[in-house]
Amino acid sequence: MTELEDQVNNLEVKDDDDVIDPWTVVGKSATGIDYDKVIKKFGSQKIDSELIARFEEVTGKKAHHYLKRGIFFSHRDLHNILNLYESGKKFYLYTGRGPSSETMHIGHLVPFLFTKWLQDVFDVPLIIQLTDDEKVLWRDLKVEDARQMAFNNAKDIIAMGFDPANTFMFNDLDFIGKCPEFYQNMLRVQKCVTFNQVKGIFGFGDSDIIGKITFPSIEATPAFSTSFPFIFDGKIVPCLVPCAIDQDPYFRMTRDVAARLKLPKPALVHASFLPALQGAQHKMSASDPNASIFLSDTPKQIKSKINKYAFSGGRATVEEHREKGGDADVDISFKYLTFFLEDCDRLAEIRAAYESGQLLTGELKQIAIETITPIIRDYQARRSKVTDEILQQFFALRKLNF
Amino acid sequence: MTELEDQVNNLEVKDDDDVIDPWTVVGKSATGIDYDKVIKKFGSQKIDSELIARFEEVTGKKAHHYLKRGIFFSHRDLHNILNLYESGKKFYLYTGRGPSSETMHIGHLVPFLFTKWLQDVFDVPLIIQLTDDEKVLWRDLKVEDARQMAFNNAKDIIAMGFDPANTFMFNDLDFIGKCPEFYQNMLRVQKCVTFNQVKGIFGFGDSDIIGKITFPSIEATPAFSTSFPFIFDGKIVPCLVPCAIDQDPYFRMTRDVAARLKLPKPALVHASFLPALQGAQHKMSASDPNASIFLSDTPKQIKSKINKYAFSGGRATVEEHREKGGDADVDISFKYLTFFLEDCDRLAEIRAAYESGQLLTGELKQIAIETITPIIRDYQARRSKVTDEILQQFFALRKLNF
Repeated sequence: MTELEDQVNNLEVKDDDDVIDPWTVVGKSATGIDYDKVIKKFGSQKIDSELIARFEEVTGKKAHHYLKRGIFFSHRDLHNILNLYESGKKFYLYTGRGPSSETMHIGHLVPFLFTKWLQDVFDVPLIIQLTDDEKVLWRDLKVEDARQMAFNNAKDIIAMGFDPANTFMFNDLDFIGKCPEFYQNMLRVQKCVTFNQVKGIFGFGDSDIIGKITFPSIEATPAFSTSFPFIFDGKIVPCLVPCAIDQDPYFRMTRDVAARLKLPKPALVHASFLPALQGAQHKMSASDPNASIFLSDTPKQIKSKINKYAFSGGRATVEEHREKGGDADVDISFKYLTFFLEDCDRLAEIRAAYESGQLLTGELKQIAIETITPIIRDYQARRSKVTDEILQQFFALRKLNF
Repeated sequence: MTELEDQVNNLEVKDDDDVIDPWTVVGKSATGIDYDKVIKKFGSQKIDSELIARFEEVTGKKAHHYLKRGIFFSHRDLHNILNLYESGKKFYLYTGRGPSSETMHIGHLVPFLFTKWLQDVFDVPLIIQLTDDEKVLWRDLKVEDARQMAFNNAKDIIAMGFDPANTFMFNDLDFIGKCPEFYQNMLRVQKCVTFNQVKGIFGFGDSDIIGKITFPSIEATPAFSTSFPFIFDGKIVPCLVPCAIDQDPYFRMTRDVAARLKLPKPALVHASFLPALQGAQHKMSASDPNASIFLSDTPKQIKSKINKYAFSGGRATVEEHREKGGDADVDISFKYLTFFLEDCDRLAEIRAAYESGQLLTGELKQIAIETITPIIRDYQARRSKVTDEILQQFFALRKLNF
């Protein structure tokens, strides 16, 4: 090894932390992001078997496989939410999405499907924010185009099966101009946070536009129930935020602000990322069509993408595979099954068969294709029925079942 | 002189610039702020006799004594506004106020009376912004209290005689949540301005709250007609901003942004400051009751304050005064007459009589009292008639005479 190679290797060792922030997610290992390390770094709590048991006990429902398989792996104050539910007190769910022009992909299903499940389990109101203003600030995008993207994405989200009687959706570019209480809470948040703080949390610098610098206040504000007087009638109601782990910085800030405003800190449950087809180092990203399975893909496209691109943990030859077995921990088809195959016994069988060499890569891919294709087919059937009128139902400022 | 004294004196010489920004106004000379220096420093244009002549020619009206006496002393692009008027094209006026809990004082009359005069001369719509959100950010003040201050101040402003058919008033804390187009323009502004820029223009630092950092976008936004679709129906209409010179930094920024957004740059006319009773180094400030004549003062209070506190340019003894004459340029009673005594011939006579020693300080003070008292009395009569219903007329989102 040359001295230079040695130095570079040392550099790599020093730089082997996964990168996770609202703009970048990169894992350094073939098995993907080390989520235990993320928990330690972010200072959140692991969702362990004890918490899952309590969840089942309090709700009387079997835990979602996302919880059991560590797909929603981390939380902040989830115990508080269970305490509230146990004592018959109210809370609400808040989640969101930064709209994009690309079609949503199967990775986007994860937090929303789990949020819908939480809504079903707890029977609580849900608020979904579409941060089209964020996209204007971060991209070369006009206000009108960002709004249109928000409306399209809203339809994509509605198709995941949310209940209009208990779900309020809004896009910032229209809603902030329709609700003085929301703006007033934005301002309260903006009064509690310094440039130094957003610099530390988000890495903003002096040459960043002032819109970016103040944007975190806009993602924080829906975590306070008084921002939605038409739903909560001015009452202070705690909230639970299901979100991907990369959004945690916003809510670390929000929780600090909540303490200063003497409002309840939002509780959080954190999702891990669905990996890209090419491997677990990267999350699935809509900007790379060959890395993603889109919610608009045909069965043929799904089949072709998985067969062609899904990184395999199989061996070089059938003989070697039969002898040594496949590596399920780096195999993307298997990873997708952990997300989308609900039957835990079947999943365990598949893992055993793959690791023993009994199941070949092609066969595993076939199972993934057969699992994902009907989910997307059903989704597309629901999506085709989401009209402008249905969108308006979700966007109307109104009371919810509360 | 010791070496130290020498050094300090040198420091003072280096530091002899007047300080003018949105938060501080201090003149270094007894005659007050050197406004010619301010023009040079800010890069604005002097309102000279040529411009005043053109103003009279184009409008067919005699120039306001504020123009002739250099009280409105500086401008940006006022010629453009005269060109528009000359060719029958439309523009609008935009001014504002950061509401405060204290009663407004006679210094506050100056920009508003001139704005009203401009509105009468040009017959154009006027928009008045009350930045109650600014006060929440800068002071230890709750949202509810800031809103109440805005409504009280709005009544004080209405009493200056504005026409409800052509004047729209709003407070940020309510209006931003009622007009999506306003928020969308705020965002467009926020996208054009970096932290470095607001740092340079306003002196913000890393430990400032993000609300302050983004606030300039909120004062900029009303300068764009598309922020008020209910008035301008989405049309791009230029605007003229009458304001005190300390607000110019906001509009230097706004003009830069306008260029980037390909919108008309707001034109400006800048007011000088009415001095405090104690002397021309300081502007009148509501936070010091002994330095200010309030719009709520009784005739007795006005008389007592002027007699007691108004800094005199007179001599130590009657004999000396008769012999050498008074100094009108530092005399506060005389300064107030330049603001409030409309008759130019009479003002010239008073100056001559005072400077020749014929008119004594007590007599000059008496003239000031007799000039200001009826103005405040008439104002108070109008103020007592401004009801909540009248306020609502000004605040209603509606078309104006346009």
